[in-house]
Amino acid sequence: MLLRDLGEWELLRRLAAFAPPGQFNDDAALLNARSGRQLVVNTDVLVEGVHFSDRTMGPADLGWRAAAANLSDLAAMGCTSVAGITVALVAPGTTAWSWVEGVYAGLLDALEPHGAVILGGDCSSGSERLLSITALGQVAAGEAIRRCDGHPGDWLVSTGPHGLSRLGLALLQNELEAAVTAGLSPELQQRAIRAHQRPVPRLDAVAALHRSRPGGLAWRVGGTDSSDGLVAAVAAIAATSGCGAVLERSHLPIDPELAQLTTGERWCLGGGEDFELVLALAPAWAEALLAALPDARRIGSLVEAKPGLVCWQENGQPLTAAESGFSHFR
Amino acid sequence: MLLRDLGEWELLRRLAAFAPPGQFNDDAALLNARSGRQLVVNTDVLVEGVHFSDRTMGPADLGWRAAAANLSDLAAMGCTSVAGITVALVAPGTTAWSWVEGVYAGLLDALEPHGAVILGGDCSSGSERLLSITALGQVAAGEAIRRCDGHPGDWLVSTGPHGLSRLGLALLQNELEAAVTAGLSPELQQRAIRAHQRPVPRLDAVAALHRSRPGGLAWRVGGTDSSDGLVAAVAAIAATSGCGAVLERSHLPIDPELAQLTTGERWCLGGGEDFELVLALAPAWAEALLAALPDARRIGSLVEAKPGLVCWQENGQPLTAAESGFSHFR
Repeated sequence: MLLRDLGEWELLRRLAAFAPPGQFNDDAALLNARSGRQLVVNTDVLVEGVHFSDRTMGPADLGWRAAAANLSDLAAMGCTSVAGITVALVAPGTTAWSWVEGVYAGLLDALEPHGAVILGGDCSSGSERLLSITALGQVAAGEAIRRCDGHPGDWLVSTGPHGLSRLGLALLQNELEAAVTAGLSPELQQRAIRAHQRPVPRLDAVAALHRSRPGGLAWRVGGTDSSDGLVAAVAAIAATSGCGAVLERSHLPIDPELAQLTTGERWCLGGGEDFELVLALAPAWAEALLAALPDARRIGSLVEAKPGLVCWQENGQPLTAAESGFSHFR
Repeated sequence: MLLRDLGEWELLRRLAAFAPPGQFNDDAALLNARSGRQLVVNTDVLVEGVHFSDRTMGPADLGWRAAAANLSDLAAMGCTSVAGITVALVAPGTTAWSWVEGVYAGLLDALEPHGAVILGGDCSSGSERLLSITALGQVAAGEAIRRCDGHPGDWLVSTGPHGLSRLGLALLQNELEAAVTAGLSPELQQRAIRAHQRPVPRLDAVAALHRSRPGGLAWRVGGTDSSDGLVAAVAAIAATSGCGAVLERSHLPIDPELAQLTTGERWCLGGGEDFELVLALAPAWAEALLAALPDARRIGSLVEAKPGLVCWQENGQPLTAAESGFSHFR
């Protein structure tokens, strides 16, 4: 069944079945807002050939990933609840309905654990497939995570390992030499592919942040997610917080097996799309968070230095621009 | 200057200049929500070759139109205030910065009269240019306009003329025979082209609706905007309200000069993209609204009939499917 066979109205009717009853009935969606809360809204677009391809991701993976990437941005803002998403879908008329169905099923799979729903959206024909998603969430007033809220002396904490998503992509694209791939444990290969296809937005880490906050400490959390890469995340926090950062090379959040690959460290630093949180916290809070989140690791500190400068703690050398993430349009 | 020359970060930096200071600094935007209000969110996507082309619209017109189309959906929900929009921009690396700059200038022009701002967004390379916009607005709790809130006996009111946008498109595309175009007054031609390139979201009509509400009458307004065409709007209200509709052929909201064209009535009924509101109101409220809004016109009534059936009042004949709007993917 092709979209050109269904027509727009039938397509919308089928899509509406994925949303709460009546949700698609109006021109726009209604949400209840409560006082003492701030609304958080985020938009991300995923384009075929740029962010995804049939070679590396099935439609359900794509849907999951699209929703997860948006929810990761909400987590990076400190959201404690997610209302839902709107979805703009563009695809050629020759696209199979089953592909769209798979995408929406994947979206729902990613939303459900967080009590979030598809709020509405739009669709259009176009020469290439893409998804543009806007996610809406809430954060208690005064308890947001901002990139600019880091201070020199803060510990930098990563909520999980980095480089796995890039390894997963490499495996899916057969980038590695056969001997290298054969040397990797099946367990790591599976974990890497899952990290690429089904990243988990770290809303749980926001909850852990609340639980682990030491009594008497005011809310102040610098942070962002690592969708553009670990170094890019650290640099963004440092730059907007008006300070520098040092990373401990011996404490990189990298899987020991991945660290053996020639490209391992580079993928950890700049592979991108791991969707972990990178946080700048007062040391006491950071220590409590590390105790509460087993996969979290201290990776360095914010320091008095040229804003945005990221150096190795061990030798003071700046990390090279090659470690930064992907740039569109180049 | 091309986007591939700027690179993503420089592009984002330039885009940020169109938003309030610091608005693009974080992963997502913060909005204050107030109690007693409902948040309204709407997403629309505009694709080159489908919704716009360089032949019929400059970049500033495109930006205006993209924002206006979204704000029109907020008006159709009864929004009394608009917070702003998020913008996902996809374009090939060969796109000129001046084109993007023009689009964002047009977006701002459309937002400013409503006190709305660009809240955030995303951008990506892609083979065709497109905009996906999400608009956020507020409506007082219990005072939304819903498609399903019409009742048999309601008057159907159009807030303005229909078919002008389609005439404007025809003029821009040189669809009409030269003799036909020559027979149209320059004033109408200008008005039609402006209706196509710079549609005005009818948020003023929502204000008029509030002002004209007769004392003692509870809030109940069925309605939608006519972006998909006049008949499509009437049919949508009727279908979701569980009733039928009759249209008075002698009272169509059409410019007298346009009515002389062979295609005039068809464009009025199904041309689409006029972005007026089509409302179903208790007769007393409708009369008061007509007095308050000079361009508004009573076009018919909701009636007990098969849900969604739209007939001519004069002879009871159903309007044909040919009058309905554009369908994607066909």
